[in-house]
Amino acid sequence: MQQVAITQKVNGLEVAQLFETIDAIKQAPNLADFKFRLANKWIDGTRNRSQITNFYGVGQENKHEPEFVLDTDEPPLLLGTGQYPNPVEYLLHAVTACVTGAIVYHAAARGIHIQEMESRTEGEVDLRGFLGLDNNIRPGLEKLRIKFKIKADVPDERLAELLQLGPKYSPVFDTITRSAPVEVGLDN
Amino acid sequence: MQQVAITQKVNGLEVAQLFETIDAIKQAPNLADFKFRLANKWIDGTRNRSQITNFYGVGQENKHEPEFVLDTDEPPLLLGTGQYPNPVEYLLHAVTACVTGAIVYHAAARGIHIQEMESRTEGEVDLRGFLGLDNNIRPGLEKLRIKFKIKADVPDERLAELLQLGPKYSPVFDTITRSAPVEVGLDN
Repeated sequence: MQQVAITQKVNGLEVAQLFETIDAIKQAPNLADFKFRLANKWIDGTRNRSQITNFYGVGQENKHEPEFVLDTDEPPLLLGTGQYPNPVEYLLHAVTACVTGAIVYHAAARGIHIQEMESRTEGEVDLRGFLGLDNNIRPGLEKLRIKFKIKADVPDERLAELLQLGPKYSPVFDTITRSAPVEVGLDN
Repeated sequence: MQQVAITQKVNGLEVAQLFETIDAIKQAPNLADFKFRLANKWIDGTRNRSQITNFYGVGQENKHEPEFVLDTDEPPLLLGTGQYPNPVEYLLHAVTACVTGAIVYHAAARGIHIQEMESRTEGEVDLRGFLGLDNNIRPGLEKLRIKFKIKADVPDERLAELLQLGPKYSPVFDTITRSAPVEVGLDN
């Protein structure tokens, strides 16, 4: 008798592997400790570049192959050369991608198939905060909005519940809405 | 008599243009209202893609030409295909790039020349929060650290002061450390 490996994908994810990961973490919670990292180098003016080569997780060091490179710039009206997204646009991408991913994983774990999902994101900032022109105005974003269109095999009245899996479980959403400490120091 | 345009760059930034922008905003504060935007589409599994085509600022709609595309993935051990950075790595890039940029702009405004600046960033997350295995563990980052090496034309004992321009004025640092509201809704 031959054992047949059954691989079932839901939303493009191997659900069996997802539950194996969850079981492994239940047995050894330290497998859940992840450290993500990057190295950044200022190039000139508004340009800088991050290299992302490795991360720690499931109890070991892991390499990205190939490594990732992310480039920053600003549009010309903010003194840049307009070649690459700016940091706020990267932040909008981080939160949108993370909420999307959280919905996909948690829907898969519940056996909910998603056919299509897209979203539009907007973040508002008053540049007077960044420029230091008014101490009452924060440098940061005052408001972010993400609007989703989702097609999934749940009744329309349950789509809002499906959507809420994103804000509930997304690491980046949680980091922004509930804040996180950022230590900035010199290492000269 | 011919008028000569004097262009002085500090840290690669046209300082005259920076002060013109500041003056214009002082006259008409609504020029400082910026809205950054993107559209995201889920592809499959851990993959999704953002397109960044336009933004609102200095009282008008502005186009990015060419538009920007940012792709998301997860490493294989998180059920992905390891092709692109994940959302937490994008967040680390956003905050590191933003703190770097804030230092560059505010140093330029003070006439401080920076020769070199690089940094290393690490963010810690306990995946049990994302997986919903323990309600006492947040999905988000527990701690971020950014360590900078800076060479600039200030005495060593003033480097820490120069560095602090980053956390003080960076929009992404402020958003993460002091939180921001994120509205997530359906637009079906």
